[in-house]
Amino acid sequence: MSEAALSHDTMPHDTGPVVIRDVGPRDGLQSIGANIATDDKVRLVTELDQAGIKRLEIGSFVSRRAVPQMADTAEVVAATAGVRARREVLVVNTRGAHDALQSGVEQLVVVVAASDRFSRANVRQSTAEALATAGEITSIAEGRALVVADIATAFGCAYEGAVSHHRVVTVAESLRSFGIDEITLCDTNGYAAPADVRRLVGVVAGEIGAVTLGLHFHNTRGLGLANVCAGLDAGVRLFDASVGGIGGCRFSPGATGNIATEDLVHLLEISGLATGIDLDRLTATARWLEGVLGFPLPGQVMRAGPRWSHPRQSEPA
Amino acid sequence: MSEAALSHDTMPHDTGPVVIRDVGPRDGLQSIGANIATDDKVRLVTELDQAGIKRLEIGSFVSRRAVPQMADTAEVVAATAGVRARREVLVVNTRGAHDALQSGVEQLVVVVAASDRFSRANVRQSTAEALATAGEITSIAEGRALVVADIATAFGCAYEGAVSHHRVVTVAESLRSFGIDEITLCDTNGYAAPADVRRLVGVVAGEIGAVTLGLHFHNTRGLGLANVCAGLDAGVRLFDASVGGIGGCRFSPGATGNIATEDLVHLLEISGLATGIDLDRLTATARWLEGVLGFPLPGQVMRAGPRWSHPRQSEPA
Repeated sequence: MSEAALSHDTMPHDTGPVVIRDVGPRDGLQSIGANIATDDKVRLVTELDQAGIKRLEIGSFVSRRAVPQMADTAEVVAATAGVRARREVLVVNTRGAHDALQSGVEQLVVVVAASDRFSRANVRQSTAEALATAGEITSIAEGRALVVADIATAFGCAYEGAVSHHRVVTVAESLRSFGIDEITLCDTNGYAAPADVRRLVGVVAGEIGAVTLGLHFHNTRGLGLANVCAGLDAGVRLFDASVGGIGGCRFSPGATGNIATEDLVHLLEISGLATGIDLDRLTATARWLEGVLGFPLPGQVMRAGPRWSHPRQSEPA
Repeated sequence: MSEAALSHDTMPHDTGPVVIRDVGPRDGLQSIGANIATDDKVRLVTELDQAGIKRLEIGSFVSRRAVPQMADTAEVVAATAGVRARREVLVVNTRGAHDALQSGVEQLVVVVAASDRFSRANVRQSTAEALATAGEITSIAEGRALVVADIATAFGCAYEGAVSHHRVVTVAESLRSFGIDEITLCDTNGYAAPADVRRLVGVVAGEIGAVTLGLHFHNTRGLGLANVCAGLDAGVRLFDASVGGIGGCRFSPGATGNIATEDLVHLLEISGLATGIDLDRLTATARWLEGVLGFPLPGQVMRAGPRWSHPRQSEPA
């Protein structure tokens, strides 16, 4: 079977390298009810860095009461100063921004939900209020750290159902007006189908112009990697994923969660898109993390191995 | 979010309806170590038929010693004579063909592996020998039942690794020469990437011409539905799936298995491709089957529900 590049028939817009942002240490571990030891978080970040992941969301500076799992983010930032990857932290208010800047992290992530009701449920602010906050955070960070943005519920909302392209474009335009030049469209509830991805990326790219678009998919209904392929088709080269597929609800192993970083790397590599990531090291990290967490993770390649990995040398008896 | 048809931007070759063949009662249940009661099999077939599935692989006439799980196929055929779906059974030798014809089933499925070593491991015949057998079966069935064919290991082999397009085309040409006009390309080991699907379908369709091509994917490395999308792009309108995603190794829940029928139906429906299948009834059947089998099935929509299914009426406290 030929290993010719996927790019030959599916990448009309962009042939640059694909960049993966592993959001496992934040988005993933945040979903775990138990607190994970700071040492384990530091090891996770370090291992992902050693595997060649170039972007890492390593924590958040948010309310300790609301998200106790992330209360030690400053310690994780301090203990991982030596990694090569660009480290990012989520912030949702100006106090968090100040704390993040003080920690010395390289990049802040602001999040604005395109759906008002989700935004209120998530950060107790309307979309417009969350946008104003994102603008303030960007001002505070200017000259001290990069700021990128996530647009939550870009493909639909658990409260409102469909979210119009117009709302997503409006949010993206506001973010762009603050000087933010990287925006990730997030399928927060796992609603997107490949055709939706092509359409929304086309609309946003067409309206916003000079911005790097990223995509964040969940595998809630089995479509995570299918949606990545649609994003690749549409020219996107930045994707979120989480090691082992952590995220979502841990009480339904395999039923939901982020797309697994190692499954994404495997897809890209067998499609001829070199990632520079050490897949063996990455799957070893996923298996180590599964042991730390103590329940099965939904990643597939961590269990099955990559294709061609174990050609049997003889027929069974 | 618009629900416009996927067909508008991805279906250049064929705009006919998509047909799903549920292989759960055979391919799926065969992988279960325990014997499932004949009554439960009959109920499964009946429920899938009632949900609107139009093609059902309901058993096999093969060695009872090798595959004891399928020893009651004649009883299942007899007890499901009233279903509307076309019922199919797998046969791998002439004795099985005679038994199948005597049972009164509508359709026989022959299987030939493109890889010699897999073919020998599977049916103790080389590819050429298995082809000759398929020809004999087709002759026996002529005028009494339809015969369709599966090409196993079309996307790679656990023993040989890559399988050339040339081998697949050669097998398909032989099958076509027997008068078989429907051929399903099977990714037996879960090796295919979307680009492989587009390439192989293009080559086989180009070489073989007047044949209906089907695709059979496993989700072993998370790519089952991504590969379906690639098949749709390439004009394929016939896909195998199994209710609940049963199949593969039951000791790794979620890690492998067929693509889940209800996940495929959900993908098609939210992409604007009407299937005529009752998704609620189908997911109810998957959950019932999970209870019968007693271990978690890998289907995602049976757990998460379809998108928009449960819009929350109010924000959480």
